[in-house]
Amino acid sequence: MIDRLMNRIEVLKCPICVGLDPTPELIPENMRKDAEKDFKEPPMAAAFAMMKFSLEIIDAIAGIVPAVKPNISFFERYGVQGFRAYDMTCEYAWNHGLMVIGDIKRGDIGSTAKAYASHLESQTLCGQEFEIWKEDAVTLNPYLGTDSITPFLDVLRVQDKGVFVLVKTSNPGSADIQDLIVVSSESGTEVGTGTGTGGGFGVGTTVPLYEHVAGLVKKWGAGEGLMGAHGYSKVGAVVGATHPETGARLRELMPSTFFLVPGYGAQGATAKDVRRFFDIQGKGVIVNSSRGIIGAWKTDGENAGRIGRAARDAALRMRDEIGAVL
Amino acid sequence: MIDRLMNRIEVLKCPICVGLDPTPELIPENMRKDAEKDFKEPPMAAAFAMMKFSLEIIDAIAGIVPAVKPNISFFERYGVQGFRAYDMTCEYAWNHGLMVIGDIKRGDIGSTAKAYASHLESQTLCGQEFEIWKEDAVTLNPYLGTDSITPFLDVLRVQDKGVFVLVKTSNPGSADIQDLIVVSSESGTEVGTGTGTGGGFGVGTTVPLYEHVAGLVKKWGAGEGLMGAHGYSKVGAVVGATHPETGARLRELMPSTFFLVPGYGAQGATAKDVRRFFDIQGKGVIVNSSRGIIGAWKTDGENAGRIGRAARDAALRMRDEIGAVL
Repeated sequence: MIDRLMNRIEVLKCPICVGLDPTPELIPENMRKDAEKDFKEPPMAAAFAMMKFSLEIIDAIAGIVPAVKPNISFFERYGVQGFRAYDMTCEYAWNHGLMVIGDIKRGDIGSTAKAYASHLESQTLCGQEFEIWKEDAVTLNPYLGTDSITPFLDVLRVQDKGVFVLVKTSNPGSADIQDLIVVSSESGTEVGTGTGTGGGFGVGTTVPLYEHVAGLVKKWGAGEGLMGAHGYSKVGAVVGATHPETGARLRELMPSTFFLVPGYGAQGATAKDVRRFFDIQGKGVIVNSSRGIIGAWKTDGENAGRIGRAARDAALRMRDEIGAVL
Repeated sequence: MIDRLMNRIEVLKCPICVGLDPTPELIPENMRKDAEKDFKEPPMAAAFAMMKFSLEIIDAIAGIVPAVKPNISFFERYGVQGFRAYDMTCEYAWNHGLMVIGDIKRGDIGSTAKAYASHLESQTLCGQEFEIWKEDAVTLNPYLGTDSITPFLDVLRVQDKGVFVLVKTSNPGSADIQDLIVVSSESGTEVGTGTGTGGGFGVGTTVPLYEHVAGLVKKWGAGEGLMGAHGYSKVGAVVGATHPETGARLRELMPSTFFLVPGYGAQGATAKDVRRFFDIQGKGVIVNSSRGIIGAWKTDGENAGRIGRAARDAALRMRDEIGAVL
């Protein structure tokens, strides 16, 4: 998956991912009203409008960007009907040449983690093979530790899929836990040289928690059968664009870890902010923008009301902005 | 929700929750084979067998235990059909007098967290009110910080629902992140007196990360409109039964936080291990067992093959074991 993703980024010259975060406010009122006429059951109508909106975005950005990142929560909101919409949106994206990064942020233990790994794993049921979920990669939450990640690594060894583990998220509240200074008791982690309070990463050395998690992600990604052909692991990291210094630091610490970088645009980060997340060859990153692209129809005067056109132009602008700093 | 839960525990004299973790291995082969005859589509057959198994457990334990904890991952495994099964299982449990704790371990930011809060929040769609998900409470992952929790707190203020935030989980890998020694930069958190390296919780004092998270959970739960009538907050904590000393310590630090305690039975913890998780009145805890109850039909010689009967007997035994130490 990581090699496919890097190839597509290369071909399109576009390290951009479009976040499909269809909040009700981003869906035009007429689209919602139409769906309410077309479907009797309100959750079905809401899910359908959300899907229709997402497909219009997909039509417009296919061939320009390599990937979309639907966030499952918006679909989950409408229950079973929402999942139908999620499922169809993912498959539609596939069939329009886009890779799908399912932003699911799952994390659980043992047999439960194995069940979540079905997001990426083909299942044999009644002798037939099923790919229940249509995702090329998913995001994972590391709070439950190694045994919450292992079942996914087992899948990555045999299937062309990927994961992105949350290391440092883009939101203000990420500081509450992720920025805590931790005393590492795992010198084997060797995440780097600490942040000034210690030289080398040994017992008693202090680093921010996200650096410790970076060490874990690096270790997980270095396992057998997980490295891609272009020097990047199938185990990537989520690193928020809103923390430029942190991103640069994490790039140093994790030279073989591909970054999924949310927070561009509407959340405030610019091309300059993410420049140092890339390696010296200008690789190793896919930058995500959600509202800045899918909500462009509300703010782009020239394309007012034209969802697809506005999204396409916004994606092209973002591609050029990032291209200019690399 | 927390008051309802405490009342039911009191009435039934049973601080037990049955974890509905229907792995394929726990479902009898004939039940799976029958479903394959009844439904043409294999994921539907698999989801149906899982649901049928879960309902048989529910029938058997209703009136004995106050709550069930279905883990959504097992259902999510079969995609849309799995969610149908989850949905029906939750509603069935409700209608058999059981409270439902959805073990979903969600966590995301901003508008995404708000979308996940729909697990508990009624939604108005086309002027009608919908309770899309049938859960009384859900579990949450705290890694993304305060803004991932806030939308849920807003719901708890106006609806009779609850959350349980992961503090210290029962699995071995929980040590990878949750046990790290952190230097707290938030003296306002005041989680307690540390673990020996510092007196009082000020700048520079060190505590395990789970104690810091405990401080956050305590703070979140102390907000306006979140305290129940019996002295416990609607914001509870998940604390694994497999760490007896930690549980006792967290009880001291969080006197008004209700604990959901997984890890009993199959994961190795006993009644003695969880005794000190309870307050001096023997309240404040619901202990979960999954495999030990729903898988009893495989190990209980007397009830071999009788799913419901074995589950019922296992639940009664667990009730008595815990009752004996309180």
